[in-house]
Amino acid sequence: MAFERAGGIRLILRLEIKNTHSIFGYVATAIGAAGGDIMAVDLIQAGKESVVRDVTVGVDSPDQGERVVAAVSALPGVRVINVSDRVFLAHLGGKIEVTPKIPVKNRDDLSMVYTPGVARVCQAIHQDPAKVFSLTMKRNTVAVVTDGTAVLGLGDIGPAAALPVMEGKAMLFKQFANVDAVPICLDTKDPDEIVQIVKRLAPGFGGINLEDISSPRCFYIEERLKEELDIPVFHDDQHGTAVVVLAGLLNAVKLVGKRLEDLKVVVVGIGAAGSAVIRLLLEAGVQNVIGVDRMGIIERGKEYPQNPMWTWIAQHTNPEGITGNLADAIDGADVFVGVSGPGVLNVGHLRRMAKDPIVFAMANPEPEIEPEVAAPHVRVLATGRSDYPNQVNNLLCFPGIFRGALDCRARTINEEMKLAAARAIAGVVSDAELSEEYIIPSVFNRRVVDAVSQAVIEAAYATGVARRERRDVVRDGRYPEAVSGRSGD
Amino acid sequence: MAFERAGGIRLILRLEIKNTHSIFGYVATAIGAAGGDIMAVDLIQAGKESVVRDVTVGVDSPDQGERVVAAVSALPGVRVINVSDRVFLAHLGGKIEVTPKIPVKNRDDLSMVYTPGVARVCQAIHQDPAKVFSLTMKRNTVAVVTDGTAVLGLGDIGPAAALPVMEGKAMLFKQFANVDAVPICLDTKDPDEIVQIVKRLAPGFGGINLEDISSPRCFYIEERLKEELDIPVFHDDQHGTAVVVLAGLLNAVKLVGKRLEDLKVVVVGIGAAGSAVIRLLLEAGVQNVIGVDRMGIIERGKEYPQNPMWTWIAQHTNPEGITGNLADAIDGADVFVGVSGPGVLNVGHLRRMAKDPIVFAMANPEPEIEPEVAAPHVRVLATGRSDYPNQVNNLLCFPGIFRGALDCRARTINEEMKLAAARAIAGVVSDAELSEEYIIPSVFNRRVVDAVSQAVIEAAYATGVARRERRDVVRDGRYPEAVSGRSGD
Repeated sequence: MAFERAGGIRLILRLEIKNTHSIFGYVATAIGAAGGDIMAVDLIQAGKESVVRDVTVGVDSPDQGERVVAAVSALPGVRVINVSDRVFLAHLGGKIEVTPKIPVKNRDDLSMVYTPGVARVCQAIHQDPAKVFSLTMKRNTVAVVTDGTAVLGLGDIGPAAALPVMEGKAMLFKQFANVDAVPICLDTKDPDEIVQIVKRLAPGFGGINLEDISSPRCFYIEERLKEELDIPVFHDDQHGTAVVVLAGLLNAVKLVGKRLEDLKVVVVGIGAAGSAVIRLLLEAGVQNVIGVDRMGIIERGKEYPQNPMWTWIAQHTNPEGITGNLADAIDGADVFVGVSGPGVLNVGHLRRMAKDPIVFAMANPEPEIEPEVAAPHVRVLATGRSDYPNQVNNLLCFPGIFRGALDCRARTINEEMKLAAARAIAGVVSDAELSEEYIIPSVFNRRVVDAVSQAVIEAAYATGVARRERRDVVRDGRYPEAVSGRSGD
Repeated sequence: MAFERAGGIRLILRLEIKNTHSIFGYVATAIGAAGGDIMAVDLIQAGKESVVRDVTVGVDSPDQGERVVAAVSALPGVRVINVSDRVFLAHLGGKIEVTPKIPVKNRDDLSMVYTPGVARVCQAIHQDPAKVFSLTMKRNTVAVVTDGTAVLGLGDIGPAAALPVMEGKAMLFKQFANVDAVPICLDTKDPDEIVQIVKRLAPGFGGINLEDISSPRCFYIEERLKEELDIPVFHDDQHGTAVVVLAGLLNAVKLVGKRLEDLKVVVVGIGAAGSAVIRLLLEAGVQNVIGVDRMGIIERGKEYPQNPMWTWIAQHTNPEGITGNLADAIDGADVFVGVSGPGVLNVGHLRRMAKDPIVFAMANPEPEIEPEVAAPHVRVLATGRSDYPNQVNNLLCFPGIFRGALDCRARTINEEMKLAAARAIAGVVSDAELSEEYIIPSVFNRRVVDAVSQAVIEAAYATGVARRERRDVVRDGRYPEAVSGRSGD
């Protein structure tokens, strides 16, 4: 296989194997026959009559894993002691921890970070509330808030089952941008209650990352929180996706020699991500966008009482008043953006697009059209997957955008900051590097976070939403401002 | 001074000093004359005409600090560049961070801890909700929840100003017991709203530590949360204090040769801590307790409509129906427990106590009676301060009690677990070590956390509130249970 198995599972089989001539050969054969790849073999314990080995086996699916285990179990002279799974092992006991930045080893340390010393810090914040931004975790901490209603492709699995995703997000925040992130999994689906709770939690956080909240509830929740809080609120499923799509599109149009304002863009799947893509493309200057969902094209000027966001989209898109479905929308389109499901797009559609079709087929894990099928008919193809070129991954956006917002103490993350982030991501790909296979940088490109955070900071100052003294924002993350209690402030 | 200055402040003065003959001698003299102690001098930069030095100065109060800075500023040839404060420097940017337990360095790591691998972990929890305890941060994480209404001795300073205390608590949880703790500072004082929010937050947490919530609201909030949640809820200001007082009392009565059931105990200051002390003493077998607050003795059988906890205390204490005030209550008392304020207790009171008076004078920072004044008249004296023997410090209790509760997946922290914790703390002081000056171990005694957590685990199993398989609880913190996805569970 050319690519690593997408979503591949690695099992670790601990086997007790009789010391009979060449029996491990039978084990290896059985694993291979059941579809497993042996990736590693470790000797755990060697006895007189038997040995214990850990055999790491790659499989494509849980079912295949069960077939491998069954095949090995059926061998004479082999006992399966247990089967563990690398992914599950990585999750044991949770993936994040809360650690002190300075140790508390003795009475002197204790009196600084806790009583009695801490009382003076509390009083300083009580007297000057703005000091909470420099003297506490609020400086650097984001709440990753979910209700578990739209988790990955799994849907409404509830807050507890969503926690591993939120922990993973917190890991990425820290690893990619040194942002501290705290998972908050809420046991309620009531949008007003979610708004109320997040408002009440806000004193301890410098930003709110909403995550995996179902559409259209997510729009209302984000909107209300943005109105009521003075810290950034950012629904990553919406805006992270939109920013990265725009980044890719900026490079794609550069490549094909088109201008944003001349494009016709069809967006399919008007949930959280699709709506945000539409809004950001309009902000960026695209003038002809058509939204398509299951029930067809979102019609110019139509009211959608169940979904105010669709009503907004109906007012701001589809200037030619096209009706019908995707086949009607796609005629002469320059760009297709899919955040829907597999099979939505076919070669017939591609043939009806304008010259040099640009296709973002981001349904996960199966894109709207198989990349191999689409390839001969498009100029630029991006997907949500890591095993094809041009992966649209929110990880390119959220660490840097929050890093920048926290560093300049932005009140909000506004449209200008998102546009700046998109341009920064696009800019990481140099003109010399730019190609059909490389319009979006890798998530592991270390320049991305810095580029995004710097651009976001510039945009925040330019739009007047940064609250920190400009001179105090330094790139190395140190804190130059003079800090003290009553004395010498 | 024999003791380190309690609440002492260390300032760092960055000074530019002209290179004139012996001018630093004048600086040192000026600092000393203003009451400061020079603790360190560091050369930061040496120039031709001047040098820059950081001078660390210990002072007793912010006012004294200001006098020191003013005195130095007035010297010719000296410029004060800035003044920073060691305590404030320690708080810059916050005191805790959220860190990944495993690194995310490449695509393979990413696919394990985030998409696509994480989806299988989410599904496993969705199918078997109990797995959230092994596969997520819930395993080891406590929310430290406050509304900022009763912070240290500062009172109602609000949720943001309370945050440094909650961060300090989180540091101590991690450093002393490897418990991950997340500060949650709520911007509401409505007890029902606090209950509702904590309930909604509960999916991600293995326990709730309530902190610095004013009395009597704290009783209602804790009671309701204990009823509605299946994870431990523990108001540390109440029970942490009570557990440590009981621990000290167990050793004190051993020393003086009395029995709990024969004691007459007077508790003064019937807020969060005082109420909890009374309840735990009754649980432990003390039969004659008298509560005294500002308005006098809590009278046998009286109704206190403003404070249901007092009504409960009135029903369960003061068996002799004594009325009046502290002077009336103290006659013949064996034990005085004060969680009130300075000056409450005088030598006249001590003289009216029974033989071998035991006094816990825990008002902070000034005890109910000055230790030097009390010493000649009491047999055993404990305070809340670190600069006298026998410090009653909650830090002896909360790390170990939550460590134990998390390790056995306790549904609650019940009275038996608190009693077990108290006995474990007392037991760390051996009979050979036991003396009037040593009834309570040091907070830095490493045996305390282990002793408490083990005792708490035993009590949890004995009372049927532990949910984890007994065999899976191991002392070294590893996770022996077999864990996997669908295959080979």
